[in-house]
Amino acid sequence: MKELAIIGGDARIVTLAKMLAKEEIQINTYALEQAKTLNAIPNIKQCTSIQEAIKTVNTVIGPIPLSNSKSQINTPFSTQSITLQELVEPLEEKQFLAGNIPEEFYEQIKHKNVKVIDLLKCEELVVLNTIATAEGAIQIAMEETTKTIHGSNILVLGFGRVGKTVANTCKAMGAKVYCGARKNEDFAWMKVYGYKIVQLTNLKKELSKFDIIINTIPTLILKQEELTYVKTDCLLIDLASKPGGIDQEAAKKRNLKTIWALALPGKVAPQTSAEYIKNTIYHILEEK
Amino acid sequence: MKELAIIGGDARIVTLAKMLAKEEIQINTYALEQAKTLNAIPNIKQCTSIQEAIKTVNTVIGPIPLSNSKSQINTPFSTQSITLQELVEPLEEKQFLAGNIPEEFYEQIKHKNVKVIDLLKCEELVVLNTIATAEGAIQIAMEETTKTIHGSNILVLGFGRVGKTVANTCKAMGAKVYCGARKNEDFAWMKVYGYKIVQLTNLKKELSKFDIIINTIPTLILKQEELTYVKTDCLLIDLASKPGGIDQEAAKKRNLKTIWALALPGKVAPQTSAEYIKNTIYHILEEK
Amino acid sequence: MKELAIIGGDARIVTLAKMLAKEEIQINTYALEQAKTLNAIPNIKQCTSIQEAIKTVNTVIGPIPLSNSKSQINTPFSTQSITLQELVEPLEEKQFLAGNIPEEFYEQIKHKNVKVIDLLKCEELVVLNTIATAEGAIQIAMEETTKTIHGSNILVLGFGRVGKTVANTCKAMGAKVYCGARKNEDFAWMKVYGYKIVQLTNLKKELSKFDIIINTIPTLILKQEELTYVKTDCLLIDLASKPGGIDQEAAKKRNLKTIWALALPGKVAPQTSAEYIKNTIYHILEEK
Amino acid sequence: MKELAIIGGDARIVTLAKMLAKEEIQINTYALEQAKTLNAIPNIKQCTSIQEAIKTVNTVIGPIPLSNSKSQINTPFSTQSITLQELVEPLEEKQFLAGNIPEEFYEQIKHKNVKVIDLLKCEELVVLNTIATAEGAIQIAMEETTKTIHGSNILVLGFGRVGKTVANTCKAMGAKVYCGARKNEDFAWMKVYGYKIVQLTNLKKELSKFDIIINTIPTLILKQEELTYVKTDCLLIDLASKPGGIDQEAAKKRNLKTIWALALPGKVAPQTSAEYIKNTIYHILEEK
Repeated sequence: MKELAIIGGDARIVTLAKMLAKEEIQINTYALEQAKTLNAIPNIKQCTSIQEAIKTVNTVIGPIPLSNSKSQINTPFSTQSITLQELVEPLEEKQFLAGNIPEEFYEQIKHKNVKVIDLLKCEELVVLNTIATAEGAIQIAMEETTKTIHGSNILVLGFGRVGKTVANTCKAMGAKVYCGARKNEDFAWMKVYGYKIVQLTNLKKELSKFDIIINTIPTLILKQEELTYVKTDCLLIDLASKPGGIDQEAAKKRNLKTIWALALPGKVAPQTSAEYIKNTIYHILEEK
Repeated sequence: MKELAIIGGDARIVTLAKMLAKEEIQINTYALEQAKTLNAIPNIKQCTSIQEAIKTVNTVIGPIPLSNSKSQINTPFSTQSITLQELVEPLEEKQFLAGNIPEEFYEQIKHKNVKVIDLLKCEELVVLNTIATAEGAIQIAMEETTKTIHGSNILVLGFGRVGKTVANTCKAMGAKVYCGARKNEDFAWMKVYGYKIVQLTNLKKELSKFDIIINTIPTLILKQEELTYVKTDCLLIDLASKPGGIDQEAAKKRNLKTIWALALPGKVAPQTSAEYIKNTIYHILEEK
Repeated sequence: MKELAIIGGDARIVTLAKMLAKEEIQINTYALEQAKTLNAIPNIKQCTSIQEAIKTVNTVIGPIPLSNSKSQINTPFSTQSITLQELVEPLEEKQFLAGNIPEEFYEQIKHKNVKVIDLLKCEELVVLNTIATAEGAIQIAMEETTKTIHGSNILVLGFGRVGKTVANTCKAMGAKVYCGARKNEDFAWMKVYGYKIVQLTNLKKELSKFDIIINTIPTLILKQEELTYVKTDCLLIDLASKPGGIDQEAAKKRNLKTIWALALPGKVAPQTSAEYIKNTIYHILEEK
Repeated sequence: MKELAIIGGDARIVTLAKMLAKEEIQINTYALEQAKTLNAIPNIKQCTSIQEAIKTVNTVIGPIPLSNSKSQINTPFSTQSITLQELVEPLEEKQFLAGNIPEEFYEQIKHKNVKVIDLLKCEELVVLNTIATAEGAIQIAMEETTKTIHGSNILVLGFGRVGKTVANTCKAMGAKVYCGARKNEDFAWMKVYGYKIVQLTNLKKELSKFDIIINTIPTLILKQEELTYVKTDCLLIDLASKPGGIDQEAAKKRNLKTIWALALPGKVAPQTSAEYIKNTIYHILEEK
């Protein structure tokens, strides 16, 4: 792993490029020409075509997420527009790492003998990202409420990876943490870690005591009816990806402050986030 | 769930019987006649035959573990000896809960339309038991070392359920906690919770710094060679079921203090342990 | 304690008035006429003169802080301007509670038989305020850095009340916390709580490893020379009251991001803050 | 600090001698001739008279505690009996460190120009010892109850140094921790650290909910009347020095399990304890 190509990507990818270069990796970049901070850096070569960037390397890193539209890849630091289709040909026989890779791309590339890895599906990175997600949620809670986290009644809905880390951080800060889930196994872990248990089958009658509700469940859980039980000064933070777990319309009607916070790691801690990505990439490359 | 039968069992089962009786459950017991503390208790009826105890109830609770020999069930509070075979007939059409139920028993009962549940395989109880197991390990560490847990270098081998809770408790007490595992996903969780990472592929060169090593991996991990790297005053605690993870022979030769601690919950916290079992039974009965 | 007067004050005092009224205390206010949210509230009477507000009560609560200028009290919710002198006469024979009461006021009031209590000198309130101060410092750190608090190297300078709570909260969030002090007794407590020790006599050679430095020492500790050892991307937060502990000029010259954050509780958590004040007032009145 | 004399003392002093010798301090010992493990150690010279041991050094370390009787010093590893009086003469012009030095000794030595330091009154050592005391209390609680610490209701009476560390450790292990004190300032710190508050003026009506009560207050606080409110299966641990805080007679009459645990650090963690003493001695010598 002495040489890599990086094609497109946002501020985290720029930070990542610098980190890799510092660790003596030779980096060819393309579609990052407006990231001026990369110019003077040893080990980084800004190339003028995809082909030039890719041809001598075995491993190519694409944007995280790869694409925001259906057809083009994500290149905020470039005037170039690159279609997913244009990326396919030069990747032949390579290894390709990017984030949130759409089905279409897998379809297009399937006969090119490319090893494709979706970084945002790597369990390691998903778990590490929960740290920054939890801190992002707490930052929002601090900014949007008039109380301290310490002593607040906080409900965390969902006890998956994000839920576990959010609950852990809130409790560490002195909040009274309740976790909502359905499985007795989850309730057992809540007991181990000292969280109070909320059974989702019993959610409504618990809802009135919370100062902050942080949802991590990606299906509608706080619907119009549930929201009528929530305190009017309760802050609702939805960390779940689309369609989210909170009925935004109904919340607005009840005048509840609701924040749908997605992709927090890149926003609140781009540097730590880039480091997580770097470590995950190293582990993937080592495992080859 | 107004009536239950309890057949045989140890001190935890006796405590469990009292707890259930207190919560207005009618209990028929058999093979607990020497548990004198059950005599005066309302809602408990000590029966004189299995048939009498079982015939009016739908749910029967057996010993945990069910049997220590191949053929007989576990009845330390009774002069009666009951074979697994004798238990089969009366259980017909009932629900039967016990611990560590052997294959043979499933075989014998398979045509009797009995719903058999092994409590020691219920994820809920397994998780809850990690709390008492962790405290038991710490109690041993306190008794067997001349240092405080606080400030000690502790290696926890294995990052399954027991490993996670042991690490959590040791860190809470101020120890410097290292966890040994193989998967990057586990390393990510260790980072979240603030444990130092030990890669098992790299175990030997780390071993010399520990004051206490707590193993939870049920395959031989600390073999003769590894043990040569361990400090002579390091305490080794093996929590793994047979065959265990520490070469006892080799440890003895090197004069290392080694303690193989099994079934800790029933030993160090029988009352809490009985409560865990009670809650798990309630959940199982509710779910029917 | 059935009747109180409240004269002037900011948003926290307004929240406090509402809380007290809700707990069946009769409140006379003066110089809060622009706090419209007080209008409709039972138990609150907005008076039109100091005399009217004070004459029937034994206890009077003034602004926190009492005064921002030398001569006038703090009345942001009023068009009235009230001099300290004007407050003296009507307070005769009463109990008076306010914050940061200046020497001049004590001088003026000394022959009036008034029991004067400076709330911001009550140990209870000072300690409670450390919670909100610590959270405020963490909020700033989250907003101003590109890393997570988790895993950051944080130096807390000073191990008084604020330093202790800041260190506790940072460690709970997973930071690597170093505390700087001079006394062996403080180092012993740091060891108990698991913070790394920095001897202030040895400060310079430690400074280069920190991502965030939070100062609580109210004398110049990070001078021009010390600042040359600090990393260029280190965030400096000064929580110490004037003159502060960081040479702002020198920090600016070195292009270090420095934030001097004073009076955080009222800013980041006015409601919790009002509750602390309320409890402290209750305790003071009970103790009479 | 290249040379020290050590006169008498117990197992901790023996460990201390070894630690010091390992760090290249030259040690003369007397009245430790039965501590055979000291024989083969470089830098340790077992002397045959006090005079020989002391004459070339500036600093002398005595037993901790210095004396168990009124007249003789503590020499469990010696057949020699040494009176306090015999120690006075050779100490002239030296520095002398020991533990629990009685008034009589200060009286005898006052004209000899000796700098006397009572190690057990050094704030640093007192604080460090709270760590081992807390762990000792928890070890007792583990051994003497049938529940886990996790989830138990624990009352810590007194919020001085020992109380603070005991509460901290119990909470870290997942207990529900209540602290009993009298001062609002202490209640504020309890809130910061997340302990529930018990007002000692209100003690009786709270007492019935505890599984474990740990007393640190050195005056009778749990008297006959209070004890009638305690649950019959509550464990009472008294950490307070004489006269203690629990009426042992009354507790015995009510059949309450009561353990008066003194001098825990030396018992449960002699090695850590010796290290604390070593560090404290270093700091004292540095400060000269």
